[in-house]
Amino acid sequence: MSETDYSAGAAYVDGCYMPVGEASVPILDWGYRRSDVTYDVVGVWQGAFFRLDDHIGRFRASMNALRLHPEETDEQIREILIEVVRRSGLREAYVAMDCLRGRPKPGLKPHPANCRNRLTAYAIPWVWVVSPEVQARGANLIVAHTPRIAEASVDPRVKNFHWADLTRALFEAHDVGADNAILLDGAGFVTEGPGFNVFAVQDGRVITPDRGALEGITRRSVIELCAELNIACEVRPLTVEELRAADEVFLATTAGGVMPASRLDGRIMGNDRPGPVSTRLRAQYWQNRAAGWHATTVDYSERTTA
Amino acid sequence: MSETDYSAGAAYVDGCYMPVGEASVPILDWGYRRSDVTYDVVGVWQGAFFRLDDHIGRFRASMNALRLHPEETDEQIREILIEVVRRSGLREAYVAMDCLRGRPKPGLKPHPANCRNRLTAYAIPWVWVVSPEVQARGANLIVAHTPRIAEASVDPRVKNFHWADLTRALFEAHDVGADNAILLDGAGFVTEGPGFNVFAVQDGRVITPDRGALEGITRRSVIELCAELNIACEVRPLTVEELRAADEVFLATTAGGVMPASRLDGRIMGNDRPGPVSTRLRAQYWQNRAAGWHATTVDYSERTTA
Repeated sequence: MSETDYSAGAAYVDGCYMPVGEASVPILDWGYRRSDVTYDVVGVWQGAFFRLDDHIGRFRASMNALRLHPEETDEQIREILIEVVRRSGLREAYVAMDCLRGRPKPGLKPHPANCRNRLTAYAIPWVWVVSPEVQARGANLIVAHTPRIAEASVDPRVKNFHWADLTRALFEAHDVGADNAILLDGAGFVTEGPGFNVFAVQDGRVITPDRGALEGITRRSVIELCAELNIACEVRPLTVEELRAADEVFLATTAGGVMPASRLDGRIMGNDRPGPVSTRLRAQYWQNRAAGWHATTVDYSERTTA
Repeated sequence: MSETDYSAGAAYVDGCYMPVGEASVPILDWGYRRSDVTYDVVGVWQGAFFRLDDHIGRFRASMNALRLHPEETDEQIREILIEVVRRSGLREAYVAMDCLRGRPKPGLKPHPANCRNRLTAYAIPWVWVVSPEVQARGANLIVAHTPRIAEASVDPRVKNFHWADLTRALFEAHDVGADNAILLDGAGFVTEGPGFNVFAVQDGRVITPDRGALEGITRRSVIELCAELNIACEVRPLTVEELRAADEVFLATTAGGVMPASRLDGRIMGNDRPGPVSTRLRAQYWQNRAAGWHATTVDYSERTTA
């Protein structure tokens, strides 16, 4: 077998496997030049994917929404994702799949309808959106002044790299020494943050926005956990006033699971530590994960055929 | 000298020159993964740049707005742009400069404030946003249903790759057989289209939006041409009703100059041909260009030092 070093991660680009450091996007690809691309991210923990087929299903729905049609079938994407993890050898991995618009085919009008769409994927060592140290004390969040890009312009349910508003919000947080930021829509409703969904806890009930945000798969898992733990969970519009008045706030993402906050715009929630409901959900999330919840175990053995 | 084939275009990536086909963006670079990047495009026609220093100045302002600080000075960027054109040998070229966020430096929090920003540039054969054939008959435009991303979320004066709304508008045009699309803001004011500014002509006066759009350098040139030709020009809010009632509509961009339209949402303007004011401005634009207006001539001779 090859002696290629996949320790920093393994990638698949347009039919070929390679170390992630060699994986790149042509500078003329509209996936980069027009951010005309969708993606998804699935986590591997203790050698098993979490909700692999749910992620592939959402990825396909995002591609269809943007009229992106790569050559690879869902079954092939599944094999590719497993293969990049297998090659990397990583037991805890952040696994991304992208579909890029590509370039217009020669001789045709340079229009997005006339491009050959391209699939890429990679596995790298696990990434935390909020570090474990910050999760333990509870994240220090702000409500950003920058509003989230409106749904009418860019559908947040189609996972995308339109992060200029999220990046600006990250700088807002950085400038006041906070860990991260939550963005509102133009009407003052809570949407999401850079790579995560937002939850408020009030009087023992969990509330998460029904609009302006990605329909996160970890969010879906939190809703299932609430049912399991007999915690009321409401998916509905959430105003910034409700968020500010909440007993607890927590975040959810593939790259971190359930992540409690302890401060919002400097206001201390509870005893400046993760609240009881957030803590319970976080513990149950990892307990279920360890028990094989929605798991697809990776076979890391060498394949007999390259 | 090298026998490298630059005929498809020449690129500069992070300190090195290469054929444009070899130029790429690492798949993990936030310039791609978060579209955390700004860019500018300057044209070369008959071997001369148009308003080169204006483009570099705007590029620097965009980088500052996003807190992007590459190693290269404005003077070095100028030399790089000239060098990619010289290497390509192209007398008519589309010349782009990008500044990407890069990746977080090892050991630091993965935050945009902690990245090494990277510069790229390239020259490729001239690209027309609207083909010369369509310009001659006048473009068939639509007003898109998709609204432009709001200024409060992403500043359109900072040139960016957040094109999902523009791409959707291009599909809207494609689906009804139109050539291109104009986008409105949430309040029904005209903004811009995919890569161009918009102008209406009413009773001999030229009107272009003062908001929601890139402050285009060709737009600035059109304002100068209006002064030269003694045509009244207003930079102010432009409603979609005014656009629909206009005698003429034209577009302006680096990659095309002044580009007349002849239909809007199927309505024929004038005699279904470019109108007289648009035609006059277009002719004067190219006449001035040929006469060396705002030109920086490229020296294509081999350099004595590589």
